Amino acid sequence: MPNYKMIIQYEGTKYKGWQEQKNTDATIQGRLQRILERMSKEEIDLQGSGRTDAGVHARAQVAHFHMRAFGDTEKMKAYVNEYLPEDIAVLKVELADDRFHARLNAKSKTYEYRIFKGDKPDVFDRRYVFPIGEKLDVGSMRQAAKYLEGTHDFKAFCGNRRMKKSTVRTIVKIEIEEIEREIRLRFTGNGFLQNMVRILVGTLVEVGRGERNVEEMTEIIESRDRQRAGALMPAKGLTLMEVKYR
Amino acid sequence: MPNYKMIIQYEGTKYKGWQEQKNTDATIQGRLQRILERMSKEEIDLQGSGRTDAGVHARAQVAHFHMRAFGDTEKMKAYVNEYLPEDIAVLKVELADDRFHARLNAKSKTYEYRIFKGDKPDVFDRRYVFPIGEKLDVGSMRQAAKYLEGTHDFKAFCGNRRMKKSTVRTIVKIEIEEIEREIRLRFTGNGFLQNMVRILVGTLVEVGRGERNVEEMTEIIESRDRQRAGALMPAKGLTLMEVKYR
Repeated sequence: MPNYKMIIQYEGTKYKGWQEQKNTDATIQGRLQRILERMSKEEIDLQGSGRTDAGVHARAQVAHFHMRAFGDTEKMKAYVNEYLPEDIAVLKVELADDRFHARLNAKSKTYEYRIFKGDKPDVFDRRYVFPIGEKLDVGSMRQAAKYLEGTHDFKAFCGNRRMKKSTVRTIVKIEIEEIEREIRLRFTGNGFLQNMVRILVGTLVEVGRGERNVEEMTEIIESRDRQRAGALMPAKGLTLMEVKYR
Repeated sequence: MPNYKMIIQYEGTKYKGWQEQKNTDATIQGRLQRILERMSKEEIDLQGSGRTDAGVHARAQVAHFHMRAFGDTEKMKAYVNEYLPEDIAVLKVELADDRFHARLNAKSKTYEYRIFKGDKPDVFDRRYVFPIGEKLDVGSMRQAAKYLEGTHDFKAFCGNRRMKKSTVRTIVKIEIEEIEREIRLRFTGNGFLQNMVRILVGTLVEVGRGERNVEEMTEIIESRDRQRAGALMPAKGLTLMEVKYR
């Protein structure tokens, strides 16, 4: 059965996240699956590279699905886009290797968190940034980020307390860019736990405020205790930017 | 009485344009004036650099107003921003020369029209671009634009048929930039008539489609006949980018 790879963009504001849920139509996966099923008259299992939380955006989420009916990928893309609402768009559909799996084959993911310096965010970006309204010391945030890079047990940064699987992940790099009116934090890693990026940002913001020391990062990691890490940042500032494959 | 200069950003989607109107609260000028009046307990006459049509956006609209009460401009800005909806923001308030007039002293204005190549616009920019879904010949659009630059009677490009004042304007330059997924048209001039930029873009799009010759531009200008020019483009693609003063 042909295997298709799909690249999807969405504004998460109105959705309860990527993952399909019972009793709601407001998930990205659910919306896409329903349109693919209507198109193919088959039952479709759309597998994303990973879940995104409610309110989180994606510039290039990747998913795959098997479909018996073989169709022109450009026509499939046009069909799906026609039935999707304005805040979800398919950027690409292509035939993939039979064994391609959007989640299992993902080599790295990049997330970006945008902090707007000021109380009132830029009108045009207001749905994609979190306004902080206070000065942050970006230098010490960068130093703290160095302690977070690498392979660690990130249990302290996991929003799911009942997580049974491994909480070890590798953060390849954290880049913190300061531009005129924003601070942008980019996380690239082999995978991220539930809420992990937003808790990492919350912790770094507390460093930027001077409420925490740079060196505390190691203690937090070692504690494996969610209580020790910083606050969960709001979803609106977070965007899944890229998923890379082998 | 102190004279203040204000720089304002707005997403025009939900508004009936800049200019205050009776029987509606949905104008940018009206919203701002009401907040300034509540703050100062004075009657305020907020003068913009010019009107923008319903649905048109602004990155940096400029306005001025006189206010008896003298206040800290940073506090004034914070007060107004607090009461404004999310889609309007004051970027700056500053004391201006007594004789400063946002409309009469404007030396040039720059508008940008964004055309998205494709049927389904980028999710994050969907409110600010117009999706065209067909190929345009940007080279001939650039050639045609050269004929439109300069000082001309732009009556053929004026949306207001009952316009009694002069319809002579100077377009200093038209830049057409083609990037990966968009064509951006930037118009800089000493002033623009009602709907003028959107009709200019509509005419250039018809050139890009091959429906009009480049040389026709001169005939259209000389005709002074709205019927000869192209279609009015949708407001959502248009943004007032900058107003310059002497």
